[in-house]
Amino acid sequence: MAQANWRPSVAMIPFPGLTMLDLIGPYETLRAHTDVHLLGSTTDEFFSDSGAPFRATEKLSEAADYYDVVFVPGGNGTADAMRDPQITDFLATRGARARYVTSVCTGSLVLGAAGLLDGYRATTHWSMLDALPFFGAIPAEDRVVIDRNRITGGGVTAGIDFALMLLAELFDEETARYAQLLLEYDPAPPFDGGSPRTNSQDTIQKIKEYVAELMASCQDFAAERSA
Amino acid sequence: MAQANWRPSVAMIPFPGLTMLDLIGPYETLRAHTDVHLLGSTTDEFFSDSGAPFRATEKLSEAADYYDVVFVPGGNGTADAMRDPQITDFLATRGARARYVTSVCTGSLVLGAAGLLDGYRATTHWSMLDALPFFGAIPAEDRVVIDRNRITGGGVTAGIDFALMLLAELFDEETARYAQLLLEYDPAPPFDGGSPRTNSQDTIQKIKEYVAELMASCQDFAAERSA
Repeated sequence: MAQANWRPSVAMIPFPGLTMLDLIGPYETLRAHTDVHLLGSTTDEFFSDSGAPFRATEKLSEAADYYDVVFVPGGNGTADAMRDPQITDFLATRGARARYVTSVCTGSLVLGAAGLLDGYRATTHWSMLDALPFFGAIPAEDRVVIDRNRITGGGVTAGIDFALMLLAELFDEETARYAQLLLEYDPAPPFDGGSPRTNSQDTIQKIKEYVAELMASCQDFAAERSA
Repeated sequence: MAQANWRPSVAMIPFPGLTMLDLIGPYETLRAHTDVHLLGSTTDEFFSDSGAPFRATEKLSEAADYYDVVFVPGGNGTADAMRDPQITDFLATRGARARYVTSVCTGSLVLGAAGLLDGYRATTHWSMLDALPFFGAIPAEDRVVIDRNRITGGGVTAGIDFALMLLAELFDEETARYAQLLLEYDPAPPFDGGSPRTNSQDTIQKIKEYVAELMASCQDFAAERSA
């Protein structure tokens, strides 16, 4: 299927309150070999959950009928994105046709809200794994989870590992290794602690408190759907 | 020096043609514990070297006299940033006072253009190490290089490792480990190849061709200075 100079189309969905690194990690990893579209309900500027200015460059209402890949990032704005019908309608229709339906971090909850993870193994930020069953998904703790054509990544920085795996799926390992060298992705964390397995209960608890509101919002979403 | 609730000020300098991940990796890593300012020659929107829309939110001309940390990302726009007097004047004056003078990727060449790396060991994207001597810096191949109060990171994704080390310098290891768990930074590259030591000569050569123009521009800069 892959041919010389084939550039798959990737629809990425930035939204107000996203975590910028969820989007930018995959964006930079894929950019040399794919055509990335930044699609939003509007193209107005918004702020990320850490206050960085950003915007979509194309409107969902003017999107193409087909993209090879659809991708959703996560962030504090996830609860609102789950309830944005422009986003969930786009995901439901293009997701049904896409070769790959993908997310990083709590973006998988938006895929779930669009009905795309029912019966699929999937992952999300480690602190939000318990939210996946609200959307019919089966939580998996791997950094990147592939179930049929659903590829979901764990929290934030898992997006880089995810995108390299996606490049290998779309093209081959050589293409992924080119992107990896361009990004000098030879990680050397100065400490451990990037997983709840290697961090303190105190730090784990603080982060669970930080996401408690989003967890409650996912529970509400499921309750409203089944009502 | 560190006290409860102390939030160091960090001046980050986004510029047209930057590599977004150079900026966003450190930005997200530092955001929970520092006050990050996005300072630019203007606050007008520009595009990153991969076409993402972004902008500074404060003007360099209205900047404070002191920041605890100054930080410069890299990217294809580096050659223009090196020649933007608003940027180099800001770096020269605030860099002389800052506790830490820092960069990721080819951002170190902008620090060099501002005269901040003369006689310092520093690093940059692996493909641009030979440019550092044009600015009087001593190239070092480590992923993060600390020489006195200069902290420079290697290419793109090295920014996350750099920022965790900076958090440990500003605060302590516990603070860095909190940020690390929030970002789920437990990297698992699906392939090797993130360093020229582990990739093919063919891929190395392609990337060297990609940066050839920036290399020539650094040489020109040095020649103009010494003329």
